[in-house]
Amino acid sequence: MNMIDIILKKRDGFTLTKEEIDFFVQGVTKETFPDYQASAFLMAVYFSSLNAEETANLTMSMVHSGTTFDLSSLSGFKVDKHSTGGVADTTTLILAPLVASLGVPVVKMSGRGLGFSGGTLDKLDAIPNLSTAITQQQALSYAQQSHIVIMGQTENLTPADKRLYALRDVTGTVESLPLIASSIMSKKIAAGADGIVLDVKCGSGAFMKDLESAKNLAYCMVEIGKNVGRKVSAVISSMEQPLGQNIGNSLEVIEAMEVLKGNVTGNLLEVSLTLGAYMLQLAGKVSTTQEGKDALLTQIKNGAGLEKWKEFIIQQGGNPAIIEDYSLLPLSKETHLVLANEDGYIFSMNTAEIGHASVVTGAGRLTKEQPIDLGAGIIMKKQIGDAVKKGDTLAVIHSSSKEKSSLAGDILASAITIRPQEPSLPQLILDVIS
Amino acid sequence: MNMIDIILKKRDGFTLTKEEIDFFVQGVTKETFPDYQASAFLMAVYFSSLNAEETANLTMSMVHSGTTFDLSSLSGFKVDKHSTGGVADTTTLILAPLVASLGVPVVKMSGRGLGFSGGTLDKLDAIPNLSTAITQQQALSYAQQSHIVIMGQTENLTPADKRLYALRDVTGTVESLPLIASSIMSKKIAAGADGIVLDVKCGSGAFMKDLESAKNLAYCMVEIGKNVGRKVSAVISSMEQPLGQNIGNSLEVIEAMEVLKGNVTGNLLEVSLTLGAYMLQLAGKVSTTQEGKDALLTQIKNGAGLEKWKEFIIQQGGNPAIIEDYSLLPLSKETHLVLANEDGYIFSMNTAEIGHASVVTGAGRLTKEQPIDLGAGIIMKKQIGDAVKKGDTLAVIHSSSKEKSSLAGDILASAITIRPQEPSLPQLILDVIS
Repeated sequence: MNMIDIILKKRDGFTLTKEEIDFFVQGVTKETFPDYQASAFLMAVYFSSLNAEETANLTMSMVHSGTTFDLSSLSGFKVDKHSTGGVADTTTLILAPLVASLGVPVVKMSGRGLGFSGGTLDKLDAIPNLSTAITQQQALSYAQQSHIVIMGQTENLTPADKRLYALRDVTGTVESLPLIASSIMSKKIAAGADGIVLDVKCGSGAFMKDLESAKNLAYCMVEIGKNVGRKVSAVISSMEQPLGQNIGNSLEVIEAMEVLKGNVTGNLLEVSLTLGAYMLQLAGKVSTTQEGKDALLTQIKNGAGLEKWKEFIIQQGGNPAIIEDYSLLPLSKETHLVLANEDGYIFSMNTAEIGHASVVTGAGRLTKEQPIDLGAGIIMKKQIGDAVKKGDTLAVIHSSSKEKSSLAGDILASAITIRPQEPSLPQLILDVIS
Repeated sequence: MNMIDIILKKRDGFTLTKEEIDFFVQGVTKETFPDYQASAFLMAVYFSSLNAEETANLTMSMVHSGTTFDLSSLSGFKVDKHSTGGVADTTTLILAPLVASLGVPVVKMSGRGLGFSGGTLDKLDAIPNLSTAITQQQALSYAQQSHIVIMGQTENLTPADKRLYALRDVTGTVESLPLIASSIMSKKIAAGADGIVLDVKCGSGAFMKDLESAKNLAYCMVEIGKNVGRKVSAVISSMEQPLGQNIGNSLEVIEAMEVLKGNVTGNLLEVSLTLGAYMLQLAGKVSTTQEGKDALLTQIKNGAGLEKWKEFIIQQGGNPAIIEDYSLLPLSKETHLVLANEDGYIFSMNTAEIGHASVVTGAGRLTKEQPIDLGAGIIMKKQIGDAVKKGDTLAVIHSSSKEKSSLAGDILASAITIRPQEPSLPQLILDVIS
């Protein structure tokens, strides 16, 4: 078996065997063939695609390229959740304590933000002293005690995926459905999940801009689950506008707590409840998603979710006083208002651009190495469909300097379209595939 | 401008500008971006192809990636010939002296054999003391004196093509028409030709197995010529069986001399005359190819072609006594007969396999580094359509050992199909595109 033959076989549209896919993944992991063969293969996959079985084999091969997280010592069905990335999308901080408060273990490996997408680990960094650098041993012990742990990826998890992703990023081979799907699924499976709820974002602030692409990705990931024996539900949710009103790390922690306190409703709550309900359903805790949503809402009303959040913060070394005193969280002092320059309705938003505006404030990063400002960000004051008058505040920007705020404000202003006519409101939950 | 954007543009089917193609070729030459980006780009080109203008731009960009051979000090129209590679295809050794004997300068940079295809430089190595390692200065002076010089590629000719070819070879991106066409044409143009006659081989012993692929390649190369101001004629000739009867270096030199002496006619003569006639026509020496063929045939009959061959050998330091005494050429002593094992007609030949049999005798090489046995090879005693009786000699194998001869014989025997019914004879000249 050699890499040239495998490239040719895929280039010519043939189906690769499990052995050939293993040969590729092991070669990538152990660097037994040069990157220029891997990148030629990836481009051939971009054009010739992979069928469901090949994609499942690729996923499992990447899972086995490194160490996996064995959660079998935890009782119960372990369920994980993954978002394909959006703006003001802080559902994890809401649903993890809510689901855990119902006794379903949530052991979540999260990532950092990149480009217009935020990342859960960055948000948790805003909580003084809280650590997400947790060993597997600690994580298991935390999960046993409280059913909740949110941690960074452990060392040597899916190293093949890491190498392949880095290569895809610089060779124009990111946008391949089976490659995206196997990358996501391999990390979730290696992280030990029995069931996975996927939040496939769709719209101007998502990787998938249209419903068809989002559905295709969702089908592809659900299919992987079926092929490798994991329960998977994929919720396709709208990213035509920021999901919550706060964008930025400290700001999103605050909004998540406001939701857990029952003070904030709307899209962020609705998507959190929906994803959480599918998690409960996969775990067999409820039989319908409506039942799941009701159960989660009860945990907000009775304070059990907030209590679990507090337990989580304490367990991971953070200061729980932030729950009552938001001033303990970093917040950039320089503020700037973005005002409506005409009367009308918020007609549409270029949500990726809003994400980029938040990067400009310092809340995000464009490269992995870039430092971020945990206290920077944007508070969106309007949603699509809201009537506005000239001079109304559309958003409040927090950053460390007038220059950043002003630049972010300009980007933001041009990302929001005001028109005289009332728009149709974007549907929030577009589809569910399982 | 950066390589990722150029990969994405081609991947998504857009047309690249001259500047983008120059950026790619210069980057390959100067190694300013990694091979994994070049190979991803090449695979994107394999799938998305290049249009005529892009292919012409790629060709000229590769021409300018290194030094070019300036033939302008030579008077007259300089015409070159290129074969896409075949078996027993020694037309250069015949047509070069014939064309030169008519006063049309033939300054030919040739290559070495690889796989089933032979190479002119290897064949000339069989002539004692003859050197093809000639400087541009020497070549110009030889051409001025005799109108003929056959030499190896000068240093730093199309370095971008060399690097790209090496990369294509190991990344499954060889079989792309615009890449094949630009690779061939860039070398010929850099070598200084005003006009180029292409011999596009087609059939079981050629890179292009069917007429449609051969025509597409021919059109692509003729189109490049039109776009960059070079006269190009492409002859599509059959490689359904070895062109001459001798395969191997010394053996092919002998057969070429037999043709120049007027002792051998048939396919090898016919293709040599056809290609030579198109060379004369491009050079404006004759107005029809029939006139060209007649003129060349006259140079055989009157001995002028053989005289030019002798002049060529002496000029490049070789021993002209080989013309009268073939025993001065190396010939492997171990012979082996391949016999017909049934009565019937030679129905078809797997010509690539016959080429591989000649590699097994030692006459060819599979890798560039492999040494070759100049005296080894195969003499084919039968052609497609010949009637044979069981026990008739199909071929005589020359090699340095019984083992090699026997193995080559087995390959050869299975490459020749004998059937009771008489086959239709393959057409020799399938098309001409100009």
